[in-house]
Amino acid sequence: MKLNHVLSVDQFDKALIEELFYHANWISKAKGHSISHLRGKLLANLFYEASTRTSSSFFAAMSRLGGRVLPINDVTFSSVSKGEILEDTIRTLACYTDIIVLRHPEKGAAARAAAVSPVPIVNAGDGVGEHPTQALLDLFTILAEQGRIDGLSVTMMGDLKHGRTVHSLSRLLRLYDVTVNYVSPPELRMPPDLVRPADREVVELDEVLAGTDVLYVTRVQKERFESTGDYHYALTEDHMARAKPTMSVMHPLPRVNEIPLSLDADPRAAYFRQMQNGLFVRMALLMYLLG
Amino acid sequence: MKLNHVLSVDQFDKALIEELFYHANWISKAKGHSISHLRGKLLANLFYEASTRTSSSFFAAMSRLGGRVLPINDVTFSSVSKGEILEDTIRTLACYTDIIVLRHPEKGAAARAAAVSPVPIVNAGDGVGEHPTQALLDLFTILAEQGRIDGLSVTMMGDLKHGRTVHSLSRLLRLYDVTVNYVSPPELRMPPDLVRPADREVVELDEVLAGTDVLYVTRVQKERFESTGDYHYALTEDHMARAKPTMSVMHPLPRVNEIPLSLDADPRAAYFRQMQNGLFVRMALLMYLLG
Amino acid sequence: MKLNHVLSVDQFDKALIEELFYHANWISKAKGHSISHLRGKLLANLFYEASTRTSSSFFAAMSRLGGRVLPINDVTFSSVSKGEILEDTIRTLACYTDIIVLRHPEKGAAARAAAVSPVPIVNAGDGVGEHPTQALLDLFTILAEQGRIDGLSVTMMGDLKHGRTVHSLSRLLRLYDVTVNYVSPPELRMPPDLVRPADREVVELDEVLAGTDVLYVTRVQKERFESTGDYHYALTEDHMARAKPTMSVMHPLPRVNEIPLSLDADPRAAYFRQMQNGLFVRMALLMYLLG
Repeated sequence: MKLNHVLSVDQFDKALIEELFYHANWISKAKGHSISHLRGKLLANLFYEASTRTSSSFFAAMSRLGGRVLPINDVTFSSVSKGEILEDTIRTLACYTDIIVLRHPEKGAAARAAAVSPVPIVNAGDGVGEHPTQALLDLFTILAEQGRIDGLSVTMMGDLKHGRTVHSLSRLLRLYDVTVNYVSPPELRMPPDLVRPADREVVELDEVLAGTDVLYVTRVQKERFESTGDYHYALTEDHMARAKPTMSVMHPLPRVNEIPLSLDADPRAAYFRQMQNGLFVRMALLMYLLG
Repeated sequence: MKLNHVLSVDQFDKALIEELFYHANWISKAKGHSISHLRGKLLANLFYEASTRTSSSFFAAMSRLGGRVLPINDVTFSSVSKGEILEDTIRTLACYTDIIVLRHPEKGAAARAAAVSPVPIVNAGDGVGEHPTQALLDLFTILAEQGRIDGLSVTMMGDLKHGRTVHSLSRLLRLYDVTVNYVSPPELRMPPDLVRPADREVVELDEVLAGTDVLYVTRVQKERFESTGDYHYALTEDHMARAKPTMSVMHPLPRVNEIPLSLDADPRAAYFRQMQNGLFVRMALLMYLLG
Repeated sequence: MKLNHVLSVDQFDKALIEELFYHANWISKAKGHSISHLRGKLLANLFYEASTRTSSSFFAAMSRLGGRVLPINDVTFSSVSKGEILEDTIRTLACYTDIIVLRHPEKGAAARAAAVSPVPIVNAGDGVGEHPTQALLDLFTILAEQGRIDGLSVTMMGDLKHGRTVHSLSRLLRLYDVTVNYVSPPELRMPPDLVRPADREVVELDEVLAGTDVLYVTRVQKERFESTGDYHYALTEDHMARAKPTMSVMHPLPRVNEIPLSLDADPRAAYFRQMQNGLFVRMALLMYLLG
């Protein structure tokens, strides 16, 4: 099986993930060495929503493979304001470039793009839909930090209702034999269709903290924080004192108040290594799609 | 004769066009192969007006030749907001780069830039002035689609009064032995100085459709559409059924309602090939100016 | 001594400046020849304030060394609007890139960035703080134009109170045996802590013009011009007629009305050569930091 586009985590099985992570791992070891597998190739970073972090990660990934990047970050994307439909924009960019990374506010936009595109489409987030490369880098980080995936206890905490990131990761984890815990206020619970019978849903971190191998903390949207009153889903030094000495703390970043800066020096704080893994996984993915 | 700047279609004669198209054709055949004639060269994409399509085309053209692109797309172009004149901006960028592609809202801006610039200036549209590279890629597409230019019947339809694109193409076509038809509502006719005695001006496509080899449809500006009431200068499947089986349909894109999506599968729909030709012609032009 | 970050002119002594200028001079001679010392390296151009001129100069410097540039010029820098602190943004970009050029509206921002960054930080202006690379290119231009620094009479004119540029240059000149004159209206005088006893402060250019070897004119901020009433700190042809035939006129650009266009043809007008020197000095600095 060979993927033409990366639209959803559902496209990935264990064999494909293993192949991808093999290359991402190789790239991480080669850090500092020049790789130019994609010399002469051009990637379009087509962002209808600003997302400096994600667009920068793809920009760096393509650049570090010797390729070039056409950045289209303008909020006032001119052709769009002239009323052009997404399909025409994609077909036009496909005349100029070899691959298109798309961030779009509407769910299903990436699939619509793929339906007309002669070049690979990578979904970099389509509204409340998916963000598959984020889930892949999260999974790669779990493996890199813990040395395995099967047998782990993974706890996700925060606003689980709106978090595209935890939705995609949750679906990807179904491929493995893991225990999953969800910690959130009742009004911000995981969507029911993503919760399996074996999963545990609680409102307090302390109920599952002791057994947790990977703690995935998500960003608090201020608006929602205010509506839920006393929001206490932030990690504290007290939590860390009671957690496993081998626990990994992950966060998709940017963080606001969910993780205090004082925890950054804790070796269990994996979120900046997670950022760097994003680069390696995206490099592996670009090589796979264009290689 | 050697061009230093590309400001107007009037700078091009048949010999120069032939040379340019020879290289554009060679590039189109080499597609996929790495060309790095402009390695080490830097192009400034200086856009005072947003035009993602044109800036992307130049970005891709330079990148595919191994060169680099400095994109300056900000609407809030800082030095300008500090009151700097265009001439100083050009002289500054000429200290950093090897060629400047300029889009500016004022007619004559490209000529003003060229007057002070030690590096080549490429006019990528100056207000109601010119957009010479668009006209060149249009002409190249006519040749590529029809196998010749002399002897053809070319029909331009839509808002011919405001369309910079059709104005430039019309002037370039004067070099050849072609029949030209203009189809528009009376209030959106071609400017009189661009119409030659042999040209035909009509208000209905059906008057000239049967004999047309190349149908060039232009975008409808919504504001003008409303002012002209019942605007019916859109192409339909019915038109296509009555047109020549070898007719080429062109459009500078983006389209809004002038060409329905259902026509895209018709082999006569040449507008996406036209986009790709834009890349080839601009690559040839950059090689010519910097080679 | 080896610099890890470039934050302030105070980090530079004469030996380091000499080494830097040796390389900048070598680069200026090699102009046109391809240099690819930084192939495979990626620079982040992180601009919280728009400054096309400075960001373009760093973009060109990195590109001309064979490196790549990730441009982050968005005013609506997304992660920031999500409340991320500067330190986290820096640590994230350091996961993707090899060096970060930072322009930030707050004094001390570059030092804060350097405190957490594993990759070199180059201060490209931090509010009313410093802009060290501007001062270095100014000093390089003085040397290039006059053939020496010691023994010269340098006059700075204009708004000396708010000009970050003249502040940094003034501090750098203390390393040399130069006579310094400051010309400004009383309310826009140089900050007292930057004035040495030997320096001369006057309100009229004519008081020091005759002996001046280098005249550094600064930009007039319109708002401040109005508040000071009859502002006459612009250079005229009459001034030039009375100045030394070997005097160099410098300006950080953009200019507004401080230097009339009619002076551009005067061989003493050094401001566009100053621009180009900025490219060479920044290339030398990037090579030094990443080489």
